[in-house]
Amino acid sequence: MSEQKKVAVVGASGYAGGELLRILSRHQGVELAIAVSETYAGKPITASFPNLAGHLPQMRFSSYGDGLELLSCDVVFLAQENGKAMHLAPGLIEAGCKVVDLSADFRFRDHTKYEEIYKTTHVSPELNQAAVYGLPELFAEQIKTAQLVGNPGCYPTASLLALAPLIENDLIDPLQIIIDAKSGVSGAGRAKFGLDYHFAEINESVTAYNISGKHRHTPEIEAALSVMTGIKEIPITFTPHLIPITRGMLSTVYAKLTRTNSTEDLLEMYQSRYTTSSFVVISKEGTLPATKHTLGSNRCHIGLSVDNRTNRVTVISVIDNLVKGAAGQAVQNLNLMCGFEETAGLLEVGGIFP
Amino acid sequence: MSEQKKVAVVGASGYAGGELLRILSRHQGVELAIAVSETYAGKPITASFPNLAGHLPQMRFSSYGDGLELLSCDVVFLAQENGKAMHLAPGLIEAGCKVVDLSADFRFRDHTKYEEIYKTTHVSPELNQAAVYGLPELFAEQIKTAQLVGNPGCYPTASLLALAPLIENDLIDPLQIIIDAKSGVSGAGRAKFGLDYHFAEINESVTAYNISGKHRHTPEIEAALSVMTGIKEIPITFTPHLIPITRGMLSTVYAKLTRTNSTEDLLEMYQSRYTTSSFVVISKEGTLPATKHTLGSNRCHIGLSVDNRTNRVTVISVIDNLVKGAAGQAVQNLNLMCGFEETAGLLEVGGIFP
Amino acid sequence: MSEQKKVAVVGASGYAGGELLRILSRHQGVELAIAVSETYAGKPITASFPNLAGHLPQMRFSSYGDGLELLSCDVVFLAQENGKAMHLAPGLIEAGCKVVDLSADFRFRDHTKYEEIYKTTHVSPELNQAAVYGLPELFAEQIKTAQLVGNPGCYPTASLLALAPLIENDLIDPLQIIIDAKSGVSGAGRAKFGLDYHFAEINESVTAYNISGKHRHTPEIEAALSVMTGIKEIPITFTPHLIPITRGMLSTVYAKLTRTNSTEDLLEMYQSRYTTSSFVVISKEGTLPATKHTLGSNRCHIGLSVDNRTNRVTVISVIDNLVKGAAGQAVQNLNLMCGFEETAGLLEVGGIFP
Amino acid sequence: MSEQKKVAVVGASGYAGGELLRILSRHQGVELAIAVSETYAGKPITASFPNLAGHLPQMRFSSYGDGLELLSCDVVFLAQENGKAMHLAPGLIEAGCKVVDLSADFRFRDHTKYEEIYKTTHVSPELNQAAVYGLPELFAEQIKTAQLVGNPGCYPTASLLALAPLIENDLIDPLQIIIDAKSGVSGAGRAKFGLDYHFAEINESVTAYNISGKHRHTPEIEAALSVMTGIKEIPITFTPHLIPITRGMLSTVYAKLTRTNSTEDLLEMYQSRYTTSSFVVISKEGTLPATKHTLGSNRCHIGLSVDNRTNRVTVISVIDNLVKGAAGQAVQNLNLMCGFEETAGLLEVGGIFP
Repeated sequence: MSEQKKVAVVGASGYAGGELLRILSRHQGVELAIAVSETYAGKPITASFPNLAGHLPQMRFSSYGDGLELLSCDVVFLAQENGKAMHLAPGLIEAGCKVVDLSADFRFRDHTKYEEIYKTTHVSPELNQAAVYGLPELFAEQIKTAQLVGNPGCYPTASLLALAPLIENDLIDPLQIIIDAKSGVSGAGRAKFGLDYHFAEINESVTAYNISGKHRHTPEIEAALSVMTGIKEIPITFTPHLIPITRGMLSTVYAKLTRTNSTEDLLEMYQSRYTTSSFVVISKEGTLPATKHTLGSNRCHIGLSVDNRTNRVTVISVIDNLVKGAAGQAVQNLNLMCGFEETAGLLEVGGIFP
Repeated sequence: MSEQKKVAVVGASGYAGGELLRILSRHQGVELAIAVSETYAGKPITASFPNLAGHLPQMRFSSYGDGLELLSCDVVFLAQENGKAMHLAPGLIEAGCKVVDLSADFRFRDHTKYEEIYKTTHVSPELNQAAVYGLPELFAEQIKTAQLVGNPGCYPTASLLALAPLIENDLIDPLQIIIDAKSGVSGAGRAKFGLDYHFAEINESVTAYNISGKHRHTPEIEAALSVMTGIKEIPITFTPHLIPITRGMLSTVYAKLTRTNSTEDLLEMYQSRYTTSSFVVISKEGTLPATKHTLGSNRCHIGLSVDNRTNRVTVISVIDNLVKGAAGQAVQNLNLMCGFEETAGLLEVGGIFP
Repeated sequence: MSEQKKVAVVGASGYAGGELLRILSRHQGVELAIAVSETYAGKPITASFPNLAGHLPQMRFSSYGDGLELLSCDVVFLAQENGKAMHLAPGLIEAGCKVVDLSADFRFRDHTKYEEIYKTTHVSPELNQAAVYGLPELFAEQIKTAQLVGNPGCYPTASLLALAPLIENDLIDPLQIIIDAKSGVSGAGRAKFGLDYHFAEINESVTAYNISGKHRHTPEIEAALSVMTGIKEIPITFTPHLIPITRGMLSTVYAKLTRTNSTEDLLEMYQSRYTTSSFVVISKEGTLPATKHTLGSNRCHIGLSVDNRTNRVTVISVIDNLVKGAAGQAVQNLNLMCGFEETAGLLEVGGIFP
Repeated sequence: MSEQKKVAVVGASGYAGGELLRILSRHQGVELAIAVSETYAGKPITASFPNLAGHLPQMRFSSYGDGLELLSCDVVFLAQENGKAMHLAPGLIEAGCKVVDLSADFRFRDHTKYEEIYKTTHVSPELNQAAVYGLPELFAEQIKTAQLVGNPGCYPTASLLALAPLIENDLIDPLQIIIDAKSGVSGAGRAKFGLDYHFAEINESVTAYNISGKHRHTPEIEAALSVMTGIKEIPITFTPHLIPITRGMLSTVYAKLTRTNSTEDLLEMYQSRYTTSSFVVISKEGTLPATKHTLGSNRCHIGLSVDNRTNRVTVISVIDNLVKGAAGQAVQNLNLMCGFEETAGLLEVGGIFP
């Protein structure tokens, strides 16, 4: 293992930030030096995260201030809401820091796409060209040499890992992809307090939202599919649902097979595709994954079944939206960027059952 | 209102049975005379349903015995597991009772289909020809004159109400229907005790099961679509999911439009199709229903959206699986069969929020 | 039944307000005329409560305006946050309206107590003398002739119904009462949006809050106990807990018996004490109530057990905090105030199971 | 760190067993050699625990067989239902194995007490004398030299850690202790499938059970208090409640102070009492712990408050019932018994938030 890297987390009191602190505090390759949170500046980490009493009993949140302190870090995680990272990243990049951004700011090579979706002007569009989309199972080689990584959204992570083997092997009609996804509430973040996230409104209920392409993760998935296929426009149908669990995401992906394939054949192909991917587990034929299988861990479990009557394949993938869907994947990207084992710091942490 | 009808419930200590008791005990057109439960025979109703302390403080469960007592009833609800009703129904029908069966025994006109799906021999197949599929919003006229009604499954109820306007108006390709459904755990019934329904395994998790057409409600939906279209085989893709809520079902239906239609046009068409249906509520454009909106009530709320890029429509329908998906719909069928107001006894009961 | 009373609800878009609308819309003795909500003024009731699509499809919320419209009502329910009713009540009382206030403004005969607890000046203290504490099982006679009723808090309702038979019969040491209560999240109301009520923070967790007498319901319980016993100060230990359910409250009451009594004797005594109380159900020896038994209903279920080793009795009472703990009890008070059957409009509504 | 110890888990497919596998698989001081489960014998660990796909991808469950294989282990964890360990322990002890039993078989020095509570004859009562009650914060010295440890129940763990500082310093009346505890459902174990643990019955509900001393953990707590105080009989009031969470236990302890103490003084005293206890965290004045703070970790968080009016102290302690309440504490005992750091293998695993 290389020498210890000095690391900072900006936006450290949110849910993804807390997961970063949890994981990084046990990661032997890093020294967790700075945790920036304006809300909690000056307070102990445990004021926001009592669960870290055993991990980070003494550390305190700091204010961003003039940001100069961050420049001394080897790696900076940006875990703020969308539209912040594009302001901070240029200075960090110039100072030689590696940056993993968990927001959407650097997920799109084409910054005009970002501007259209997020309805804001991108202030550092030149960085988008250099930024790598941080889905290690698909883009590990590019990530290894990247200085700036745009960490994928949770829905795209679960959905693209489910689709990749089919797309790469040209087994499905890319124009008939339907993704029906179910997410736990922590995916909305910790800063959203509205009635929409009030326990009494969400508990004992399920609902869909932002359907028919209105969710911002729709173009993110489409952009990644375009990169993979070389096809310019791949409009998909994507439906996110909110279910009353705290953590966990299940993506049900429907695709039309272009050839006849058995469930067995496809499972074998998936197994082989992900054989070197430490964090992808393929379910045995006849079994399907549950989100609970990944609670607290960085793994993605995938199961599938072919219906011969319709020649459609249904692929089910599950992740913990805060780990593989956010902070865990960000650390996986750090590992690749710093030359650590891809799994460093990530095997210790999960996953609990039941 | 017609004179009071004498009514019995067989299988009265299950979840659907309990809902029947709850609703019928307040229904002014009926006298709830008999509640059969072998498990609780001789015990007060409140031993199984403490919630009915105010409704049925004195009534007791009885044993089926020789079944002769049932013959004096005007209407008998059969709410047992599959494979029981086909034994009881012939005697009841012969004695002139009206019968609403909540199991699958009389949902299929073609009894060989039933035998294939439920892997058992049907002992009274001649009744299947006469039985009417009890989805009142589609088959009210036939139900009114039926002596035997096969009450639909919960998934088919939610899914067919979502699809009917599109199918009836020939607006979608029937061979590209995908249904992604999410159900609360009470749908599994009260008699299933296994690890699969243990709180600790289900809570904070979501999973799919019986995918790729393996769920028994798949052919039930397909059979109803065939009746509606006249097309012999309409293979659909149907994926049920189990989510950690007690009651509630959400069906997300994907269909390919054969013509260009706006969300607005389709909503208007749905509104018009269901204008006389007291229990169907169409969501306004831009809003979508949540299962919590129907908790404890017999309503089905439907919302939809068209994606012009893919020319697919996504229809979301929600019900309480134990009410519109079981007992409430059964009472709605009784109302039609007995000449009561379709809503009799069904407006009082729900629905609570939050 | 008397003629229909014209009724208004102020604060109609909160959780208690919504329950009032649900119950009053089916109450045959009342005409639900006005539903005031500043937040939703002008919008249909169903915009806030989609569950009332079948009950109140056409009605709209109105603004308070100059409040003159309310004066034409026979009964006005005030369901706002604390500190509002004391401004509205004087005008209504003067105009001859009967008023049921669901806030704390009129729960204390001694307005200085209110001012101390709620840290505000009471603007209509003269009304507190005339107001009756609206717990019908204890104070029915006074409620019948009251023009102004202070509807009890949810914790006091569950706790006082559990304690009353022991207190009234002088069976326990009033200075050794400990109440450990568990509440669902809807008890916090719909207007509180903070992180404290965020689904992700509350789900899969339990916590205590405002312990050691700091919860405002502590002096409310103590004041009622003082009224019942004539003892000036009865300091109790009261600990509220927040548990991850939407509705439901369980109060575990510990008391030291002053004489030796068996579980059987006490249960008989409770049964006899509440024999004319339609909404109180005493559990059989060896069984205990669960909050689910009262979901959506106005009942309170009570069970108990004596430990001969310690001569302590443990009494468990459960209610639906939004019904018997708020809106249902308010309607029960209206029934008494207007000369209706005490149960009018309250038997139809619940309770659902599971 | 000492050399690696060879370790076995018997009863490895239950919830406590699964936690042992999760923790031990990452514990650098041990070699996890054998996982016995009759139910899953021959199957991969991941068949029962898909969450361990990344930890134990290859290991399989084995059958107990003649039990000889276990004799080669340094440490054996017995994680079966009550009444099994007393049969297995004698052979293991004779062979020189260290044994940590997670059942109740060796928690009582007085085996007749065990026989009375568990209604069975103890077949190896001579071992009870030598066995040590494995609550490390109270009995670390004895545990270090023990060959057989009876791992405490979850309720006793949470309750005794809350009480110990008060008892040890003689600050409370031992005859006025009341414990009101709330437990997640995993505490019931994985083998109990009945209707009592059916998701639909437990969700959205709270109930008490085995009140007034009928829960088997009552005498376990009392026995430990007797050991601590030297008083022969300390009858307590203990009320367990079942709440709809998977993991987590909160114990609310009420005690009468014999002298006047402030909240501040007592917190300082607790802080000092547990200053060398790595797994006990004392909450700051004015804050209280939530079970979510300990999810997946071996910590116990404790908060308290004194009510000067009643001179009662309310102490709140929270644990993860499967970790500090079972498997984590068992590993903590192994650490002490084997001369490892007390925290070995236990810091890595938790705790996740939210």
